[in-house]
Amino acid sequence: MYALGNHLLVELRDCNSEILKDLNRVKDVMVAAAKEAKATIVDISFHEFNPFGVSGMVVIAESHLSIHTWPEYSYAAVDIFTCGDVIKPEVAVSFLIEQFECKNPSVVEIKRGILSHANEKLPYKFSDSMLKLA
Amino acid sequence: MYALGNHLLVELRDCNSEILKDLNRVKDVMVAAAKEAKATIVDISFHEFNPFGVSGMVVIAESHLSIHTWPEYSYAAVDIFTCGDVIKPEVAVSFLIEQFECKNPSVVEIKRGILSHANEKLPYKFSDSMLKLA
Repeated sequence: MYALGNHLLVELRDCNSEILKDLNRVKDVMVAAAKEAKATIVDISFHEFNPFGVSGMVVIAESHLSIHTWPEYSYAAVDIFTCGDVIKPEVAVSFLIEQFECKNPSVVEIKRGILSHANEKLPYKFSDSMLKLA
Repeated sequence: MYALGNHLLVELRDCNSEILKDLNRVKDVMVAAAKEAKATIVDISFHEFNPFGVSGMVVIAESHLSIHTWPEYSYAAVDIFTCGDVIKPEVAVSFLIEQFECKNPSVVEIKRGILSHANEKLPYKFSDSMLKLA
């Protein structure tokens, strides 16, 4: 079955807490992960919470990456939602595990937008040259 | 088992395509949905793609809402990732179904950050007054 979107739910347990509480470092890692996956970055939005913890979104032409960190539990929840054949979300996952020094990761892959139950590929609308930012 | 985050994966099939292709309308609906859920909005980022389709993120103090629309398939993928006891993500889901005139919705709930296997509640760090924007 073909789906419009591919969604990786990444549970990063037993990470380096010092990294997870550093806004700029988390932002740099997420932006680099998007680039590793060959995504086209459209916008980024990262915020730090008191006493600690970072939330961030990387909007990409192919959908998005998000992260929410709980440094006090050495845990981060990452989502990598992509569409199209070019992007390599699994490369981003490996990169994130390495960068956050995660010792206990798990990944669940969910197909989004399964609209065709036949074994046919759904035409995908996006191409780099078609990107129009609002 | 208690989890740090609650993640609703919302599949909105058979929506009104005219609404799904309207950037401002999709943005207004998503922002209103966040407010309906009693979320604290931190940032928003919405983009339109050519020939059609909208991607958008509503960053909230309690995590995020995201949407990606495929008007040509009358389909939208929505995520509502929240933490804390105050927020009402299920209210946002009902609101979105109504606003997008969705005739075939489905929702999967995933618990994120299940770190405690005992029946104990994990302390949750966020409170409104603690919000510090970076």
